[in-house]
Amino acid sequence: MNITPQLFVPAITPFLPDLSVDTVRFVANCRVLLEEDGAHGLAPFGTTSEANSLSVAERVEALEALLAAGLPANRLIPGTGCSALPDSIALTRHAVSLGCLGVLALPPFYYKGVTDEGVFASYARIIEATGDPRLRLYLYHIPQISGVPITLPLIERLLKAFPGNVVGLKDSSGDWDNTAAVIKAFPELASYSASEALLAKNIAAGGAGCISASANVQARNIVSLIGAIGTAAEERIAGRVTAVRKIFEALPLVPAIKAATARRHADDGYRIVRPPLVALSAEFTPQIDQALALSAPERT
Amino acid sequence: MNITPQLFVPAITPFLPDLSVDTVRFVANCRVLLEEDGAHGLAPFGTTSEANSLSVAERVEALEALLAAGLPANRLIPGTGCSALPDSIALTRHAVSLGCLGVLALPPFYYKGVTDEGVFASYARIIEATGDPRLRLYLYHIPQISGVPITLPLIERLLKAFPGNVVGLKDSSGDWDNTAAVIKAFPELASYSASEALLAKNIAAGGAGCISASANVQARNIVSLIGAIGTAAEERIAGRVTAVRKIFEALPLVPAIKAATARRHADDGYRIVRPPLVALSAEFTPQIDQALALSAPERT
Repeated sequence: MNITPQLFVPAITPFLPDLSVDTVRFVANCRVLLEEDGAHGLAPFGTTSEANSLSVAERVEALEALLAAGLPANRLIPGTGCSALPDSIALTRHAVSLGCLGVLALPPFYYKGVTDEGVFASYARIIEATGDPRLRLYLYHIPQISGVPITLPLIERLLKAFPGNVVGLKDSSGDWDNTAAVIKAFPELASYSASEALLAKNIAAGGAGCISASANVQARNIVSLIGAIGTAAEERIAGRVTAVRKIFEALPLVPAIKAATARRHADDGYRIVRPPLVALSAEFTPQIDQALALSAPERT
Repeated sequence: MNITPQLFVPAITPFLPDLSVDTVRFVANCRVLLEEDGAHGLAPFGTTSEANSLSVAERVEALEALLAAGLPANRLIPGTGCSALPDSIALTRHAVSLGCLGVLALPPFYYKGVTDEGVFASYARIIEATGDPRLRLYLYHIPQISGVPITLPLIERLLKAFPGNVVGLKDSSGDWDNTAAVIKAFPELASYSASEALLAKNIAAGGAGCISASANVQARNIVSLIGAIGTAAEERIAGRVTAVRKIFEALPLVPAIKAATARRHADDGYRIVRPPLVALSAEFTPQIDQALALSAPERT
């Protein structure tokens, strides 16, 4: 890709005590991520967002709330891939109709050991049923959770069949060799790493940047890091970014990200998760506070 | 359990060529399974039914079609467990409101490595939100696909909290030691094996019978086997049942079950699957026909 590397934040979905979606906190936090932290965009309704714990109606309503609050559709890549194709189609159509920059689409994730042919047919169905040349679809490779990898032959077939619609990939496998192979084989694809630890490698190889869970907390430093790559400041900023990442890696990720968001806003409402996740125990507050301290912008 | 062992069929969901649910074939096939084959009941919307490839609205409509056609609600245990709790709650409430015998509920299956506490909270939420003493919930243990096991400590906790509502378990793990441990620890639970190969063991140990994919094809022989256990005919019938099972084990299961249903009805419409599954290749027709021949009732 010949584009400026970017950071998209897979923004958390806050809940009210009755576990309904807390649209007010959702909008407020997304606004902070975009306007204060300076993230290039948001990828709401990802794994960090508990998207697959939400109904289709809840996802539609929450996305519309962002736009109603004035957040720009052309900086949003909502997740739209569900277990059931009719749900994926409904969400993809909806996001495109609102003018979103793109959609980040999981493959159907209930069955395991499915064939590339079946996954191709799934994406083909979504793209054809959406039937809109504005659709920009990012493939979501997270085999350790979805159980369904996005293989190189599958990418090749999709790019050949839908060159205008299939535009990118998020590689959450954590396997740099896979990301490198994708970037090399498909330079026309915008390839994002899920880990900020791979950001420098991603950019050096011609990737598009990252979509990282911890960006919910440390977006400012990741944006700084993107700007500092190749400069004297890179190593110092990268060290802080990696230190934050390591703290979250040692904790249940989504509950920890929500706990950190709660500390940041001084608002425990952000801590609430939906089952099957469990809110982070208060005993980890020191680690969370350390992550927040490391995430604060450097004084210059 | 002190009940007569039973067979429930996880009935397939037929599709039309445009991949919408084929309600006409669905009803016709379910009627055959109950009225001609003599299955004790149906467990529609299971793994064999491609349930998680259907939207909530499609599942509601298809279940209502069965009842509108006169099939008895008190012989139906529909699957209602989804990735998102609001969907599971909606489907569970709906099934209970229609008077279904029970519901077979997967745990939320997107996140992996979740805690018993989180899975308990998921089921508790479904049961409390349904808020109906008529709810009879069967837990669905299929860790090789869901990624979320139903552990013994979880069962104990659920039985203690919801003794009237949590009434059974389907063990699709294929691990007889697990089924045996569940039956021994919780004799009040109706424990079904997913494999007809474990049927005799299940019944001998005090289990409730089986809910088996291949029962879509060989329900008559499985019902015969239940009746023949302990008689001279047991070994002969069990041999046929196992032979059919082995044929399906060597093929992609759901597409093969649908292909067999198509051959049985002489109606290729039944072959259609939804992506990410792929319809069975015609090259396997000889194996399918052999399974059907073995599934025919014995001439007596």
